[in-house]
Amino acid sequence: MTNSSSDRPGEFELIAQLFAPLSAKAAGAYGLTDDAATIQPPPGQELVVTADLLTAGVHFRADDPPALIARKSLRVNLSDLAAKGAEPAGYLLSLALPRDWTLPWMQSFADGLREDQNAFSVALLGGDTTSTSGPLTIAITAFGFVPAGSMIRRNGAKLGDHVFVSGTIGDAGAGLAALVGELANISAADRETLVSRYQVPLPRLALGEGLRGTATAALDVSDGLLADLGHIAGTSGVRVVIDADRIPLSLAFKASGGSVSLAVAAGDDYEIAFTVPAAKRDDVRRVADQAATPITEIGRVEAGAGVALLDSSGHEIPVSKTGYRHF
Amino acid sequence: MTNSSSDRPGEFELIAQLFAPLSAKAAGAYGLTDDAATIQPPPGQELVVTADLLTAGVHFRADDPPALIARKSLRVNLSDLAAKGAEPAGYLLSLALPRDWTLPWMQSFADGLREDQNAFSVALLGGDTTSTSGPLTIAITAFGFVPAGSMIRRNGAKLGDHVFVSGTIGDAGAGLAALVGELANISAADRETLVSRYQVPLPRLALGEGLRGTATAALDVSDGLLADLGHIAGTSGVRVVIDADRIPLSLAFKASGGSVSLAVAAGDDYEIAFTVPAAKRDDVRRVADQAATPITEIGRVEAGAGVALLDSSGHEIPVSKTGYRHF
Repeated sequence: MTNSSSDRPGEFELIAQLFAPLSAKAAGAYGLTDDAATIQPPPGQELVVTADLLTAGVHFRADDPPALIARKSLRVNLSDLAAKGAEPAGYLLSLALPRDWTLPWMQSFADGLREDQNAFSVALLGGDTTSTSGPLTIAITAFGFVPAGSMIRRNGAKLGDHVFVSGTIGDAGAGLAALVGELANISAADRETLVSRYQVPLPRLALGEGLRGTATAALDVSDGLLADLGHIAGTSGVRVVIDADRIPLSLAFKASGGSVSLAVAAGDDYEIAFTVPAAKRDDVRRVADQAATPITEIGRVEAGAGVALLDSSGHEIPVSKTGYRHF
Repeated sequence: MTNSSSDRPGEFELIAQLFAPLSAKAAGAYGLTDDAATIQPPPGQELVVTADLLTAGVHFRADDPPALIARKSLRVNLSDLAAKGAEPAGYLLSLALPRDWTLPWMQSFADGLREDQNAFSVALLGGDTTSTSGPLTIAITAFGFVPAGSMIRRNGAKLGDHVFVSGTIGDAGAGLAALVGELANISAADRETLVSRYQVPLPRLALGEGLRGTATAALDVSDGLLADLGHIAGTSGVRVVIDADRIPLSLAFKASGGSVSLAVAAGDDYEIAFTVPAAKRDDVRRVADQAATPITEIGRVEAGAGVALLDSSGHEIPVSKTGYRHF
C-alpha cells in the first residue's frame, strides 16, 4: 500500500461503495446492510463451513497486486470447500486494514473479488472492516453445500487405498522463491508460471465435487504434500507411502532447479490429495476427465502410521522438513 | 503477551491440546481434525451468520487478561446473533498470533472461551491459526438459528414505532476511559463495574429471541447508540428521535462524570436497540420480563431521515461525534 490517504471514504461508505455491490445477487446478504446474513441449505443438503486467515508477510507479500491478494484469499478458502466435495455458495470477509490503506488499492482489491466471484459463482454475504496497527489481515469464512453426510473427510483412508494428487506439486513454493529473488536463472515464462501458481492458486472445485462418493479421504495441499498427507494418515489411523518418482512436477518447476524433496515440503499448492479404493480407480479417472483436471497416482495406504517417501528402490528418503508451520 | 517462548507447542499441537477440547460436543466439528465443519439447521430453521474481527489496540488492550479478551471476542459475535433474534449454535475462530505468544497465555485464552461456551451453549466448530508480525488479531464467525424468514432486520422500523434499548448506555466507554487512566476520581467499585462492562459485554440473547415477531428492527449497540440507530433510520427510510433524558445511564457511569452526550457516542455497549409498534408495547415489556433484561423506551420513529437527540424542551441537541469509526 502507498501512503496517501486523501479522499478516502469512511468505514460505512467503503462497505456501501465497494463491498455491497459484491453481495448483489445473494438472497441472504441483504446488501450488507444488516448485522448478519442468513443461509438456508437446499433440501437434503447441509452447510460446509471453513475459515482461513491470511496476513501480509506470511501468506502474501504486502506489495503483491491487491487484486491478486483478494483472489488468493478467496481461492484458498474455496480450495478447502473443493477438497471437501462442497459446492461453494458464499463467503464472509473480515478485513483489518493498515492505517495507510488507499481507495485505489481497495478498489483493485474489490475488483479481484468480483472477478473470482464470477469465476466461481459465489457472493459476498457479510463481514467486518476494522483498522490495525499491523499488517493487512484478511479473514474469510467460506460456505458451501453438500448432500447431508457426504462431506469428504480426512479420516476415511483405508488399507489398500491408492493415493492421488491433482495438478503438479511444488510450483507455488518455487514461485515464492522467484518472487523473493532466490531463483536467478529461469526464463521469464517459467517465472511467470510459477509466480502465478503462488499468487493465484486454482481451487479444484469440479474435481472435488466429483470425488464425493469415490474418494475415501481428501484435503487440499496447503502446508506441503507430505505434511498434509500426514493429516490423512493420522486421522485415518494408517500409513501413507508415496513413490518419489511419481510426484507430478511441472516443466517450469524442474527448469527452476526444483527437486522432489523441495516439492513435497513446499506449501501453497492448493491441489487436492485424496485416497481411493482399488475398486474405484477407474471411476476416479473418469471423474478427473469430466472435471478436466489432471490427476496422478502417487502412492498407497498401508498399515502403520505416518508418511513415507520412497525412492525407486523402495528405500525411504529422509525428509527434514515436511511442510510449513506457522510456529 | 510476555516474551518467553520456551516449551511452546507447534501449530497443530496447539489446536489438538487447547482448541479441540472446545469442539467436543459439536456434531459437525469433527474434533477440529478436518478442513471444514458441517452445519445442518433444524427443520424449518435457517442459519444466521455474522463475523467480527478484533485487534489488539483497537477492540481490546494487548495487556488485558487473555481470558477476558477471549470472552469479549466471542461475546461481541453472540451479541450480533442476539440482536437478530438468533439462537447461538457455534463459531469459527481464526487467530493471528504475534510471534511472542506463550502457552500460559493461550491456555488462559482457551479457558475464557470454555467458560463462555458453557455460559451460552455454543461450541467451537473450526478456524485457523497463523502468525503475524502485528498485533494479536481474532476473527470469529458465529452461527445461530432462527425460524426461516424470522431474523430481525435493521430495515423494518415503521412510522409510529417506539424505540427501546436494553440495559444502560455509556458504561463500556467509561470503562475504557478508566482503563487508560482518564477517570481519576471514581470509586474502586464503580471503576470495576465500568471496566467489566468494557471487557466482558453481555450478549442479550434471551431478549433477542423474545423480540422475534415483536420488534420491527433491531441491532446491537457497538459503534455508539446514535450511530447505530442511524443504521436503523437509514435502512428503514425513517427518522429516529431520541429523548436525551430517557437514555438509561448507570449510577457508576453518572458517578464517573459521564454525560448523555458521552453515552450516546460511546461504543462497545452491546445492548440491543430496537423498534416496536405501538400495539406491541405491552408485549415487549413481557418479553423483557421473561428475559430478565431491563429495557427502556427512549424515543420514537418519525417521518424523515437520520437520528435526532432532543432535550426536555424538544430542542435538538447537537452531537459532534455520533459513534466510533475505524477510519
